[in-house]
Amino acid sequence: MEDDKYVVGVDYGTLSGRALVVRVSDGEEVGTAVHEYPHAVMDAELTATGEKLPPEWALQVPHDYREVLQKAVPAAIKAAGIDPADVIGIATDFTASTPMPALADGTPMCEVPGLESRPHAYVKLWKHHAGQAQADRINALARERGEDWLPRYGGFISSEWEYAKALQILEEDPEMYERMDHWLEAADWIVWQLCGEYVRNACTAGYKGILQDGDYPSEDFEAALNPAFKGFAASKLAHRIGQLGERAGGLTAEAAKWTGLPEGIAVAVGNVDAHVTAPAAKAMEPGQMLAIMGTSTCHVMNGDSLVDVPGMCGVVDGGIAAGKYGYEAGQSGVGDIFAWYVKNQVPGRYFDEAEAAGKSVHQHLTDLAFEEPVGAHGLVALDWHNGNRSVLVDTNLSGVIVGQTLATKAEQGYRALLEATAFGTRVIVETFNAAGVSVTEFVVAGGLLKNPHLMQLYADVLRLPLSTIVSDQGPALGSAIHAAAAAGAYASVADAGEAMGRVERGKYQPNQEAADAYDRLFAEYQLIHDYFGRGANDVMKRLKAMRKEAHS
Amino acid sequence: MEDDKYVVGVDYGTLSGRALVVRVSDGEEVGTAVHEYPHAVMDAELTATGEKLPPEWALQVPHDYREVLQKAVPAAIKAAGIDPADVIGIATDFTASTPMPALADGTPMCEVPGLESRPHAYVKLWKHHAGQAQADRINALARERGEDWLPRYGGFISSEWEYAKALQILEEDPEMYERMDHWLEAADWIVWQLCGEYVRNACTAGYKGILQDGDYPSEDFEAALNPAFKGFAASKLAHRIGQLGERAGGLTAEAAKWTGLPEGIAVAVGNVDAHVTAPAAKAMEPGQMLAIMGTSTCHVMNGDSLVDVPGMCGVVDGGIAAGKYGYEAGQSGVGDIFAWYVKNQVPGRYFDEAEAAGKSVHQHLTDLAFEEPVGAHGLVALDWHNGNRSVLVDTNLSGVIVGQTLATKAEQGYRALLEATAFGTRVIVETFNAAGVSVTEFVVAGGLLKNPHLMQLYADVLRLPLSTIVSDQGPALGSAIHAAAAAGAYASVADAGEAMGRVERGKYQPNQEAADAYDRLFAEYQLIHDYFGRGANDVMKRLKAMRKEAHS
Repeated sequence: MEDDKYVVGVDYGTLSGRALVVRVSDGEEVGTAVHEYPHAVMDAELTATGEKLPPEWALQVPHDYREVLQKAVPAAIKAAGIDPADVIGIATDFTASTPMPALADGTPMCEVPGLESRPHAYVKLWKHHAGQAQADRINALARERGEDWLPRYGGFISSEWEYAKALQILEEDPEMYERMDHWLEAADWIVWQLCGEYVRNACTAGYKGILQDGDYPSEDFEAALNPAFKGFAASKLAHRIGQLGERAGGLTAEAAKWTGLPEGIAVAVGNVDAHVTAPAAKAMEPGQMLAIMGTSTCHVMNGDSLVDVPGMCGVVDGGIAAGKYGYEAGQSGVGDIFAWYVKNQVPGRYFDEAEAAGKSVHQHLTDLAFEEPVGAHGLVALDWHNGNRSVLVDTNLSGVIVGQTLATKAEQGYRALLEATAFGTRVIVETFNAAGVSVTEFVVAGGLLKNPHLMQLYADVLRLPLSTIVSDQGPALGSAIHAAAAAGAYASVADAGEAMGRVERGKYQPNQEAADAYDRLFAEYQLIHDYFGRGANDVMKRLKAMRKEAHS
Repeated sequence: MEDDKYVVGVDYGTLSGRALVVRVSDGEEVGTAVHEYPHAVMDAELTATGEKLPPEWALQVPHDYREVLQKAVPAAIKAAGIDPADVIGIATDFTASTPMPALADGTPMCEVPGLESRPHAYVKLWKHHAGQAQADRINALARERGEDWLPRYGGFISSEWEYAKALQILEEDPEMYERMDHWLEAADWIVWQLCGEYVRNACTAGYKGILQDGDYPSEDFEAALNPAFKGFAASKLAHRIGQLGERAGGLTAEAAKWTGLPEGIAVAVGNVDAHVTAPAAKAMEPGQMLAIMGTSTCHVMNGDSLVDVPGMCGVVDGGIAAGKYGYEAGQSGVGDIFAWYVKNQVPGRYFDEAEAAGKSVHQHLTDLAFEEPVGAHGLVALDWHNGNRSVLVDTNLSGVIVGQTLATKAEQGYRALLEATAFGTRVIVETFNAAGVSVTEFVVAGGLLKNPHLMQLYADVLRLPLSTIVSDQGPALGSAIHAAAAAGAYASVADAGEAMGRVERGKYQPNQEAADAYDRLFAEYQLIHDYFGRGANDVMKRLKAMRKEAHS
């Protein structure tokens, strides 16, 4: 088709950025390329000086993000074999919350001469947790004052978000805090680099920046946290908000040079990797919960009304799609737990057998474990090896397995962990349902959808039809869809998603008999979930405290 | 010493019998030999016919025991290089409860022509659990009637013991039940073979035959179980009782021919492998709890007075030593749990490292795990993978581990299990102390004493001095000591043990700092012990029921 038009989606991950070239008419993915960040994650030392970083720090270098535009975008266009003149828009999505300090013109503080040796001048990656003390104070104060925005975040502001990280700068490097004009998400900074306009996207502004009903936390609240923090939102945070899929501006001449794309084409408002995927998986309607299942799981779903769901990560007006309330929840350990188990609790003979059968150990364990009917392992586990995000919101919880006998095999423990994550999802779904935000379909994106037993398990445990995205690049495809909307090729992101997204609808259907059996295991999960998670026995917290003492 | 005298101890295990020749003057072990039972354990089919046996059956062939006398005893004498004429006595110990049906002259029913094809004609090995339904009825009825002997067994009569197994015969092969004149322990049958006298040893008669204060359960009780069972004790069980270490009779001419030993030498009353070990480890005084630590742990201790200790296996007058009350308790999984973990939950790299370091995987895991201070693993486990014997007396309990994170390593889980067994022992010791049967020293025999970290752990957790036996053949040495007493070489078994037993007294002393730290972990163990074990949450039983359903 000689008059085909294309868009470029760029997905900024933790270690690399991926560019994907997509045909506007039908979402066909025609070319892709990846560029790894030269500085990756600085969590041990600052590259510029070799200075050691304290525990829980995780920094990045903004120029690495520019390099993705300079390298991966042209490479993807080349791989696609298309004429760059046929590209009509570009959009990006990012990890979040990944904020950085910048001058009024968008220059990152770490690029200001003389500041490259200051750790607080760099990007604080989502997994920078060194502001935990500040987050604890934010939460305690907000609870004490009964701040009305707190329930919008399930009662809990994370140390990963904009406020805790900014307060850490103020209290550890006040001069840096003073000199920064903007405290902005990398998601918005990269858009600024592309179109020369600073637009705060509604998604991160709401979920990570505590923007609710048009307001940030009050100056009173800021001052109560730290007198010098007063005016933070007004002076360093507040800025024009852009809705997801809107045009932030046109591609600048400089960015056109970097990318090889036509100057002036649409640049979409920034976005977040999970949320941007919703139209790619055609999960835009209320009731369609999209789960991006990888090392952890992020759940996003649109709703028509605003409700406080206990233990959710957040609800944001326009947080997933303009005009709808975007709900987010999360499980802090999923694939990570399976990987931990395979690395630390699985004998060598399983690896030998898997190799001989030409499959992964994960697949081999899954195949063995699902030869048995539900409940044959006699086990129930809690999936809290990395804490619990939703709905308990407690990082100090940990894993449990109950029911081991001398006959318990490694694959049975593995299955119990798969089931535990499904039960954890069911707790979230039931909490949403109970709050009046009904879930009617479960849509899966992310690497774990490749395990059919796991998908069937989720369908059975949730008693919901389970749909799966048909793309290995969900976020980049989602960005491309937003680019098409921003370029005006479609009337809305949802319309663009209908044409360009790809989902296998209801691929897995709940099996009645299995669902009944899982109900019995889920009842056991709930009992120990509440026993260990809701204060009846805080053994996990005491064990973690002992562990910390022993290591110190 | 040309006038040295010797005794022979024969230890009948589950798969073989071992003969040990020991010098009477000082307990020096001078020769040993093992003979494996040709029929081993018949748990799948009856050798004589090839008939398949149902689940939970475990039979043995009595003639295999005679062969140990015919082969292992002469071989041990030969290995010792002594003159058999210098042997003054022989004693035996056996697994228990391992009963068999016999005619009035001691002929095993399976040796009666025409009965060799009948499974119920054979020895029912200790681990024959097919009489569980009968045991359940015995317990329910005893509780209902408030039988005063029930508390002497911690409130629980095992399916392994004489009553349940006999009732099973009556109800499944009534003709066999009718024809048998005696229902006797292999421990006593082998003594009968040696000296031509049937003497029931006080140990098994008490612990396994429900003989308390000179009485068996009443005829009323027998009739309530099954009308045809009325008179069981009087007609098939009751017989002369012999105290441990007494002379049962003199070696017969026939047995002298089998063994090569002098006719007429002392043959001691039968005994049980755990109990016979007490004098070998010099653990005969009240307060000295002897733990035989292997796949499981058996705890035996003498006391001056008769007390009902909740959850003990039993208290028997003369059960360990004549004139004292013998207390017994047990942990149903110890070394078995460690072996299960190593086989099913330890990655291949640990095996490679252990091999490279020239040590066992158990030792390697232990060494790694104990590099860390107490509590550094952040874990607490329950050691119920094979149920709980003391003090909960519940075979339907199962294992638990709490506190796993993505950083938890295999050796940390291993240590948590070692600790769990130590905590399980502490629960037993504290229950004895609380009942007024004080434990002041912990004496260990059995294979696990070779792990110094484990021994130190037990000393710390129990806050008791821990002594270890100095013999690899504790039971056979114990039998030899009983033989010396029966032969009159010493005034009592205790005296013989003082001269011939060997213990490293107080080899491990509790470390105050470690003990304090373990107290905190033990407090967590107690909380989950009571939560899962005392009815607050019967999840383990429900999981086992689901498991059984799923497999059926």
